[in-house]
Amino acid sequence: MNKQKKDFSDDIIQLSHGDGGIKSAQLINDLLLDYIGNDILQKLEDSAVLRLDNSKSLAFTTDSFVVNPIFFPGGDIGKLSICGTVNDLATSGCKPLALSLSFILEEGFPVPDFKKILTSISEMLGETGLNIITGDTKVVDKGSVDKIFINTAGIGIVDNNYQINPNKIKPGDKIIINGTIADHGLAILSQRKEFNFKTDIISDCAPLYDLVREMISVSDQIHALRDATRGGLATVLFEIARNSGLDINLSQESVPLQKQARGICEFLGMDPLYIANEGKMVVFVGKDDADKVVEVMRSNKYGKESAIIGEVSKEGKGIVVLKTDIGTERLLDLHYSEQLPRIC
Amino acid sequence: MNKQKKDFSDDIIQLSHGDGGIKSAQLINDLLLDYIGNDILQKLEDSAVLRLDNSKSLAFTTDSFVVNPIFFPGGDIGKLSICGTVNDLATSGCKPLALSLSFILEEGFPVPDFKKILTSISEMLGETGLNIITGDTKVVDKGSVDKIFINTAGIGIVDNNYQINPNKIKPGDKIIINGTIADHGLAILSQRKEFNFKTDIISDCAPLYDLVREMISVSDQIHALRDATRGGLATVLFEIARNSGLDINLSQESVPLQKQARGICEFLGMDPLYIANEGKMVVFVGKDDADKVVEVMRSNKYGKESAIIGEVSKEGKGIVVLKTDIGTERLLDLHYSEQLPRIC
Repeated sequence: MNKQKKDFSDDIIQLSHGDGGIKSAQLINDLLLDYIGNDILQKLEDSAVLRLDNSKSLAFTTDSFVVNPIFFPGGDIGKLSICGTVNDLATSGCKPLALSLSFILEEGFPVPDFKKILTSISEMLGETGLNIITGDTKVVDKGSVDKIFINTAGIGIVDNNYQINPNKIKPGDKIIINGTIADHGLAILSQRKEFNFKTDIISDCAPLYDLVREMISVSDQIHALRDATRGGLATVLFEIARNSGLDINLSQESVPLQKQARGICEFLGMDPLYIANEGKMVVFVGKDDADKVVEVMRSNKYGKESAIIGEVSKEGKGIVVLKTDIGTERLLDLHYSEQLPRIC
Repeated sequence: MNKQKKDFSDDIIQLSHGDGGIKSAQLINDLLLDYIGNDILQKLEDSAVLRLDNSKSLAFTTDSFVVNPIFFPGGDIGKLSICGTVNDLATSGCKPLALSLSFILEEGFPVPDFKKILTSISEMLGETGLNIITGDTKVVDKGSVDKIFINTAGIGIVDNNYQINPNKIKPGDKIIINGTIADHGLAILSQRKEFNFKTDIISDCAPLYDLVREMISVSDQIHALRDATRGGLATVLFEIARNSGLDINLSQESVPLQKQARGICEFLGMDPLYIANEGKMVVFVGKDDADKVVEVMRSNKYGKESAIIGEVSKEGKGIVVLKTDIGTERLLDLHYSEQLPRIC
């Protein structure tokens, strides 16, 4: 155990320990890593990369999905469980090799609903050309789980000659995103009773490996990739800046955002930069290649609205400076306030 | 989709769909495999084996743990989550390479309990020399999960020159188990309010990779390994016999069983052959090597009571014949009746 860390002082687990914000980070850094930390886990990447031999490494990732509701505009928990893990692997730039799938089902769960979820999973496997090669099914008594939770893990092979890794980011790199932000989170919120709004916004839930493959095929300057899920775009940029010590400039007007999403966020008093996505890749690319990478991304069906949204400015204090629509500047922080649970 | 299969006709998920018995098999064969089946998954091995190149294959496995209670005599959900996945990998004869770990926590879960679980996990990682290299933590609102569920997945490297695989089993093979059966299931039941018995029996929960490694080091005739968890020893033998078409003879008096366990089973009207274990490996070994394999197993701390319990008799109808203590014979079947949920 690393004695330099402060003791984790909370006495019960709170919803905010799972929201991707500051309490989540405390739970992981001040508690979990004290017990199970090691050089690879410590990096807290979307997927871990383990060297197999001189030419190849193995990428490995896992996620549990507890989204509520299980069916939402643009997807369901089944689609999400495949896309989430494919995208975590894709952040290593690697072709996913195979997935695992584990269900926890509540006694009394309707089989027709289960069939719909299995259909979504099957469709995503078809689209990505991937297979589930190992699995597990547990059933628990009524009331011990809310309908259905799914865990997927995934493995992939990384070419050691093209490693994508945040420590390759350098001043001057451009930051690209493959489309509008906040759609997944708002689609989920629109289904919750405690919020009372109607919207046409659907989740952006999508498998992004092909997009990544196409980017890699035109540029050897893809330095880092991050899947902007829980905590949204802001949390990804905050973590990259803090961990690298590099300063990032983000241009609010460049960040793709649906007009309707902007309106809902203003109405609810939420910042779209912190709202979850499930089909958005944040790309750090050498500046000379940025335009051609954006171009190839725009030709992919999941990248039509790709845009350069900022840049890595300099070695500095590891801060993210947001230039707002009205021309002011503010620092992005890790969100403190409690976000909504079960967004993914 | 395989149209030859019957449509899965149940309209809701029942507890018995998760007990490792006949309803579990129906859920998997008649529903899940219709949507996500493929050559590897279809084998339904404890761990999937995927060829990487001429010399190596990759083993991959996953399990979700939902045991109730989370602390039980001989272990807890943390220890179980590491041992279960280590043992699934060990059935491929492979050295585990790394694990993933995913928590689903209930809002309000006491942090001291979480620390106890993390301590168990850390101890098992120490004993096995393994690392968690990727993970995930979700927190759900109170009432949406019962305290804590854990998923682990694991990867390992298999030497293509020594593949352990049920299709290598042949007539004459001896069947060995590394100690007493039913201890885990009975330890869990003893903690349930609906059962009212006291016992000194503790769970056999243990990581068995070292045991397997030692067996492999003395014999090149280890044909198959199975971890006898949900559904117990009987279910493992039933599935092996049915899938291979080989007949198996099992000698009841040879199966290690604690006297106290026998008494409790008689009292409860339960058959120990169907009760879950969490540290029992069923070994199919060429007959000439059986004695030396038992000997090396007995020198391991998790194999002191290893015993030859039966043999593969002949190409036949794929049945398991149990020679009972009183000299009669009966056929082992897949359990139909509802077993207890959340045993692991």
